[in-house]
Amino acid sequence: METLKVVKIGGNIIDDAKALANFLKEFAKVSGPKILVHGGGKLATKLANQMGVEVKMTNGRRITDAATLDIITMVYAGKINKNIIAKLQSESCNAVGFSGADGNSIVSEKRPVKDIDFGFVGDVKKVNTEVLEVLLENNILPVFCAISHDKKGLLLNTNADTIASEIAIGFSGIYKTELYYCFEKNGVLESIEDDNSVIENINTKTYQELIEKGIIADGMLPKLNNCFHAITNKVAKVCIGKPSMLFSKNTTHTTITA
Amino acid sequence: METLKVVKIGGNIIDDAKALANFLKEFAKVSGPKILVHGGGKLATKLANQMGVEVKMTNGRRITDAATLDIITMVYAGKINKNIIAKLQSESCNAVGFSGADGNSIVSEKRPVKDIDFGFVGDVKKVNTEVLEVLLENNILPVFCAISHDKKGLLLNTNADTIASEIAIGFSGIYKTELYYCFEKNGVLESIEDDNSVIENINTKTYQELIEKGIIADGMLPKLNNCFHAITNKVAKVCIGKPSMLFSKNTTHTTITA
Repeated sequence: METLKVVKIGGNIIDDAKALANFLKEFAKVSGPKILVHGGGKLATKLANQMGVEVKMTNGRRITDAATLDIITMVYAGKINKNIIAKLQSESCNAVGFSGADGNSIVSEKRPVKDIDFGFVGDVKKVNTEVLEVLLENNILPVFCAISHDKKGLLLNTNADTIASEIAIGFSGIYKTELYYCFEKNGVLESIEDDNSVIENINTKTYQELIEKGIIADGMLPKLNNCFHAITNKVAKVCIGKPSMLFSKNTTHTTITA
Repeated sequence: METLKVVKIGGNIIDDAKALANFLKEFAKVSGPKILVHGGGKLATKLANQMGVEVKMTNGRRITDAATLDIITMVYAGKINKNIIAKLQSESCNAVGFSGADGNSIVSEKRPVKDIDFGFVGDVKKVNTEVLEVLLENNILPVFCAISHDKKGLLLNTNADTIASEIAIGFSGIYKTELYYCFEKNGVLESIEDDNSVIENINTKTYQELIEKGIIADGMLPKLNNCFHAITNKVAKVCIGKPSMLFSKNTTHTTITA
């Protein structure tokens, strides 16, 4: 089976025009089938402020009301996605931008209201690979923003890490899939202040120990949950680190194993 | 040769959620290969006002500065395009949203500065059909917003009527292409106040007469220039009228012939 790389880039790259341009220049050269997933960065909050739309939080978590969904759709699927596509084309990498509605590729369910009503947030139910397969076979790069749909006409805000892991899982019967989470650190760190304290391998057993020791906490928890979700669902390889891990074999990073 | 329908819808449908929903419901049922092109409507101006971005005009024509290009990208490629895609998916019509950057499908050149600097406005140079062909062959509907790119990393604001005619022309060797401009009138009217005064056929000769008589003027001139550009460049059929002309054979409309 051929290898498919699913690569997620986050806010630290998106928010830095020069870093993004450099990343895309290198990424354009990566051979073989690949899918890029991008987060939103700070642009959505900036636009909300400019428009006078209040950012609603409950227990420290953002609520996606109708106005916020519009903003996210404009920023993620519009401004960020289309500028990434234009930049990739300038590097002679033929790419097509996707939300989960495009090609009916990512179907989700509006998160049921329990204690908190998160609003227009989607939990992924199914990845449909058909349209993406056709593009990949034609050497075209699909670039995903973090929006899914419910197949009933509703767009839904969806975590970009989750989109990436679900795509990698969805393709795991068709390709040997590899999932790369790029962020600003060299990997999962033993000590958050020391970028050289990379934990090079985490498996299910050591993961529990790291949680108990408090080494993995906060934002790293959902990210690592996505990693383990992927690696236990037939994704062949899951890595966390700086984007350079994609371009140079000697770059230190964290590998997740089952 | 199989027939490809290229259909352009404008602001009057985009700005009216119910009209848009009704249109998409009917359009989803139209059989055979088709491409939809949508304009922007009033949403971009509304967002500019909300953001405090000044709408710049010179000689009555809008100037696309960097802030306006961002707004257009957010509204056209983001909000409008993705909501159309989600709605089509809910009608079981598999669609993928496109700007001209996606799939490198519409390459344009930033309009050279002569008397007026229009800013980030693109004049179409080439339509690349390869990616679109693959989708059409797989029964997928490409939906275009009115944005092109220069293949050097720049997105460019481009007239939606022009995008539609250039796509129809670009496909004319591959499909028998038909171009439909949907708007709020029954067609080109003899008397602008009388929606029943439809001129059912306009050819190159009668077109000149209608211009001389002042019957065709203002906004209809560029639209009809796009029509004649298409019909004289191997597009098999060009029609102007209400969207119902697509769904019912008996709907009055204007047909353009060479």
